[in-house]
Amino acid sequence: MQKGTVIGNVWATRKEDDLQGLKFLFIQPEYPDRTPAGAPFIAVDRIGAGFGDQVIVTRGSAAANMSGDTKLPIDALIIGIIDSVDIDTKRGE
Amino acid sequence: MQKGTVIGNVWATRKEDDLQGLKFLFIQPEYPDRTPAGAPFIAVDRIGAGFGDQVIVTRGSAAANMSGDTKLPIDALIIGIIDSVDIDTKRGE
Amino acid sequence: MQKGTVIGNVWATRKEDDLQGLKFLFIQPEYPDRTPAGAPFIAVDRIGAGFGDQVIVTRGSAAANMSGDTKLPIDALIIGIIDSVDIDTKRGE
Amino acid sequence: MQKGTVIGNVWATRKEDDLQGLKFLFIQPEYPDRTPAGAPFIAVDRIGAGFGDQVIVTRGSAAANMSGDTKLPIDALIIGIIDSVDIDTKRGE
Amino acid sequence: MQKGTVIGNVWATRKEDDLQGLKFLFIQPEYPDRTPAGAPFIAVDRIGAGFGDQVIVTRGSAAANMSGDTKLPIDALIIGIIDSVDIDTKRGE
Repeated sequence: MQKGTVIGNVWATRKEDDLQGLKFLFIQPEYPDRTPAGAPFIAVDRIGAGFGDQVIVTRGSAAANMSGDTKLPIDALIIGIIDSVDIDTKRGE
Repeated sequence: MQKGTVIGNVWATRKEDDLQGLKFLFIQPEYPDRTPAGAPFIAVDRIGAGFGDQVIVTRGSAAANMSGDTKLPIDALIIGIIDSVDIDTKRGE
Repeated sequence: MQKGTVIGNVWATRKEDDLQGLKFLFIQPEYPDRTPAGAPFIAVDRIGAGFGDQVIVTRGSAAANMSGDTKLPIDALIIGIIDSVDIDTKRGE
Repeated sequence: MQKGTVIGNVWATRKEDDLQGLKFLFIQPEYPDRTPAGAPFIAVDRIGAGFGDQVIVTRGSAAANMSGDTKLPIDALIIGIIDSVDIDTKRGE
Repeated sequence: MQKGTVIGNVWATRKEDDLQGLKFLFIQPEYPDRTPAGAPFIAVDRIGAGFGDQVIVTRGSAAANMSGDTKLPIDALIIGIIDSVDIDTKRGE
């Protein structure tokens, strides 16, 4: 999973069927210390993440596992809102 | 998902079976501010996207979730045509 | 999907079961204008692509959707031989 | 799979359903000689990996294969704790 | 699929269940001419590849298609040992 920060919203009225009602947020992927790590992408949110929240995002087709038997065509899902991170700056040595 | 702009069409008469009739568009992936973010790729469109439209694209095997039980060999699908984007330029802090 | 050009063949007698008889081709991924876009990779071809053909390639596990119920361990499939490409060089603006 | 070192923990109280109770660790991906290879990411651990352990990590939707019939929305799983690595520094020639 | 050379072994006693008995090898991904193309990764081998062999590797969740109905949490599988490669150095033009 990737750590990122919620930086925006995306609105799209015309959508694939089955995606009506989903919330789409822009995520800036980040290093643990919040340095940006690549281009922002769009993720589905079902757990109430908001602007500035640090989140855990699942990418790829596993994101579609959220919906039980019916798999939706989505490739990124916010799976957690981060409370805290504990990093060993010596990289485990 | 990735934000991108529709920049072209691709025509291919000789195709894998089951892909007849699908529309294939070239997408330029982009940062939220429309700066290009990597090489253009090809996506399937079923919702009527046109040249210059900003779109949301699902990549990877989740794109094949569009078709219900029969999964097609496609790895990119336009899932929405963007109305508007709202970005926090301070990156949520 | 990715646009690329067929640049070579690969032969492998010793293979995973179920892959006997498949044709493996080297693909150079490309920008729409045929500039190379990263390292060549190997794709399965079932539609008769040949040296120099420009093709559409599906990557990732969706490539295995070609074979119906039995999913093969392949991650790239040529799904179309390109007749023509129509690119808006102004990028849709 | 990728080789990496466990460098941290992530805590998230608010999570997608079905993910309660899982342990999330930060992994620094690495070359065989432990040089960092890209941005750290977050993986699920079920085999008791700890800070500084060198691990094998499966990425992408195959990570969800850990859970039998119910696929969870996770995209990285620690599948082994490395005892030793044996590299041919001449690269097999 | 990716072309690579087998450059090492990895041993891990503590593993996810179902992965006991599998052989894990380090692969150096390569251009057709054997120039390295990115960081080495770890793949499962079931066809007897050895040090220095040039191999075809399937990456991503399609690697798990090797095992029939029971999908294992692996994301790279050696699917062939290369006999020969035939590259058109003019890139098909």
